Amino acid sequence: MYKFKVIASDKKARVGELVCPHGKVSTPVFLPVGTQASVKSLAPQDLKDLGVEMILSNTYHLFLRPGAKNIKKLGGLHKFMNWDGPILTDSGGFQVFSLGFGIEHDVGKIVSLYGDKLVLGQQESSEMVVRTKLCKIEEEGPTFQSHLDGSTHFFSPEISVKTQEDLGSDFIVALDECTSPLHDYDYTKASMERSHRWEKRSLDCARDCNMFGVIQGGPFKDLRVESAKFVSRNDFFGVGIGGALVSKQKMHEILDWIGPHLDPEKPRHLLGIGAVDDIFEAVERGVDIFDCVAPTRLARTGFLLPDMNVTKASYALDKREVLPGFTFAYLHHLFRARELLAYRLATIHNLKFMQTLMGDIRQSICEKRFAKLKEKWLK
Amino acid sequence: MYKFKVIASDKKARVGELVCPHGKVSTPVFLPVGTQASVKSLAPQDLKDLGVEMILSNTYHLFLRPGAKNIKKLGGLHKFMNWDGPILTDSGGFQVFSLGFGIEHDVGKIVSLYGDKLVLGQQESSEMVVRTKLCKIEEEGPTFQSHLDGSTHFFSPEISVKTQEDLGSDFIVALDECTSPLHDYDYTKASMERSHRWEKRSLDCARDCNMFGVIQGGPFKDLRVESAKFVSRNDFFGVGIGGALVSKQKMHEILDWIGPHLDPEKPRHLLGIGAVDDIFEAVERGVDIFDCVAPTRLARTGFLLPDMNVTKASYALDKREVLPGFTFAYLHHLFRARELLAYRLATIHNLKFMQTLMGDIRQSICEKRFAKLKEKWLK
Repeated sequence: MYKFKVIASDKKARVGELVCPHGKVSTPVFLPVGTQASVKSLAPQDLKDLGVEMILSNTYHLFLRPGAKNIKKLGGLHKFMNWDGPILTDSGGFQVFSLGFGIEHDVGKIVSLYGDKLVLGQQESSEMVVRTKLCKIEEEGPTFQSHLDGSTHFFSPEISVKTQEDLGSDFIVALDECTSPLHDYDYTKASMERSHRWEKRSLDCARDCNMFGVIQGGPFKDLRVESAKFVSRNDFFGVGIGGALVSKQKMHEILDWIGPHLDPEKPRHLLGIGAVDDIFEAVERGVDIFDCVAPTRLARTGFLLPDMNVTKASYALDKREVLPGFTFAYLHHLFRARELLAYRLATIHNLKFMQTLMGDIRQSICEKRFAKLKEKWLK
Repeated sequence: MYKFKVIASDKKARVGELVCPHGKVSTPVFLPVGTQASVKSLAPQDLKDLGVEMILSNTYHLFLRPGAKNIKKLGGLHKFMNWDGPILTDSGGFQVFSLGFGIEHDVGKIVSLYGDKLVLGQQESSEMVVRTKLCKIEEEGPTFQSHLDGSTHFFSPEISVKTQEDLGSDFIVALDECTSPLHDYDYTKASMERSHRWEKRSLDCARDCNMFGVIQGGPFKDLRVESAKFVSRNDFFGVGIGGALVSKQKMHEILDWIGPHLDPEKPRHLLGIGAVDDIFEAVERGVDIFDCVAPTRLARTGFLLPDMNVTKASYALDKREVLPGFTFAYLHHLFRARELLAYRLATIHNLKFMQTLMGDIRQSICEKRFAKLKEKWLK
């Protein structure tokens, strides 16, 4: 029921086919993010029309609202959101720990500080405003406070798996602790070892063979290698590559370190990454799956991939089409007038860009000219 | 090129066919409002899918942003907004005068007062906040201040017509002054007479035979009758029925007063009206065309026609479908989570309701059972 097969390769870059109960997915693939059971501004039919094959949804958000049990009562996440394609859910760990180290260290996905309020940049929701360290970690699992109402929740590996199974996700992710790049070696090692214990517990309680283990270990080579070996030797379906990263350079190094220790038959997901240059660098190092809120979030600010800000005055009379029937001039007007259609059209554009990019990447691998495509894009 | 034909009737209620360069429209019809060249949250294809045949757009808003001249450069309003069906534009007069009497009298479409700021409820835009009387009326035409940036603009009948022709509207409306129901008889009479002079000037400078004259006269029978005769005897294509209204009862009276004086061969548009009971009462009195922002604006608050507030907790686990594939429970979640898709789905629902209602009304007239349908709805 869950399969992954590499069908073409060009050096370490690979084209694969992922199979699950809700369909087939060609890799390398970019997953649009539907944080709260909706890829913001789009209907599922828009995603189908774009050729999107799989989306990612966030366990943490759905756990809190409307609640995974409620979604289960309503027939599962696919039925709830009217999307019949594959869904991968994360473990919820990233969001839970963002409330911890992110605030402690002011790093990771926390991007801005307003007065005494920290704003979690990773979140799509404007409500994601937190004031203090909201997460406590114990061996049994983390305890965190909801960003919505401050209520306290315990979140073990078993609860994460149960939540994802209640949602009815096609692929699930084992609970791990996402460490900060500012944590020291000792903390990072201890945390990684605890993550491995949590991931083992996740695996032990899972119903199906559809789980991604996650490699942690921060910026330390020996830890990353140890973690890669752990995920490879255990019975995970796929490999997640996690952690908040200090630099793109470090990310490339980490991928180089772990590459030789990964099971070539398991799909590899670089969690939360989706910039064009990162995708090329990671595909070159054997990564198969990407997800990121950037293309959809940038769209809602008027930023059109790869490099256009349609809110600029220079687009006011631009007759070129941004999408069939819609000109840059019209999209410019919609953004200036704050019309809701602006967000949908821009999101469609950005996801169309990502779909085209990933299709081009797959084709270039099949035709053994990935390096040339990469050079063309990154020069 | 512009035609109207009554093809069935049931007492005074009538079914007609309106023809213009961009297509045919069955009446009685409800026009969704695309204030800023967009029916909020929808794409033109959504309107097509709903069977919408004609929309209304607002000259005042487009005059200010992006400017009718710019829209003309971009190929006209149809091409600009990617809508190839008929478009009726209003004259801009209503919005211009709302800035005047509305603030003076705190009536009409001005619905709320925040501190010293009056908010024009008729507007869809959150920016429509004004502080003082922003409009001055002279024989040549009104001078008003933009709600966007406070800039001063002169707006004559000739400018209104030229603006609507630059937009490329299928049907245009003559400039009139929309009086307040709190204006006295003398002011209302003088204003109506000036409106008639403006409407005559509008007619004289128009390129095509596609203009609606507008009946004013406030709540006074002799003035309304005089205005109805004026519009009937002049060479307007259609009849608009205008004025800010104090009560539904008064609106019915006005329709009863003017009915005998209307040219039966001209289509009749009750400007800015679109509540279910008003539509039934007006169709019964021979009205053919309606427009109103209420169905789309209410949708964006979670109010689903005819009488459901989907944001209420009782919908949280409601498995019934609100639209194919989408449950009330999901729409409830989207509103609670402030997901953009909420606005589009709710708007589609409300316009679907209006489309079905108008279709049922037309059929009931063809089958001479309009009174029964009205009774069923209004009891």
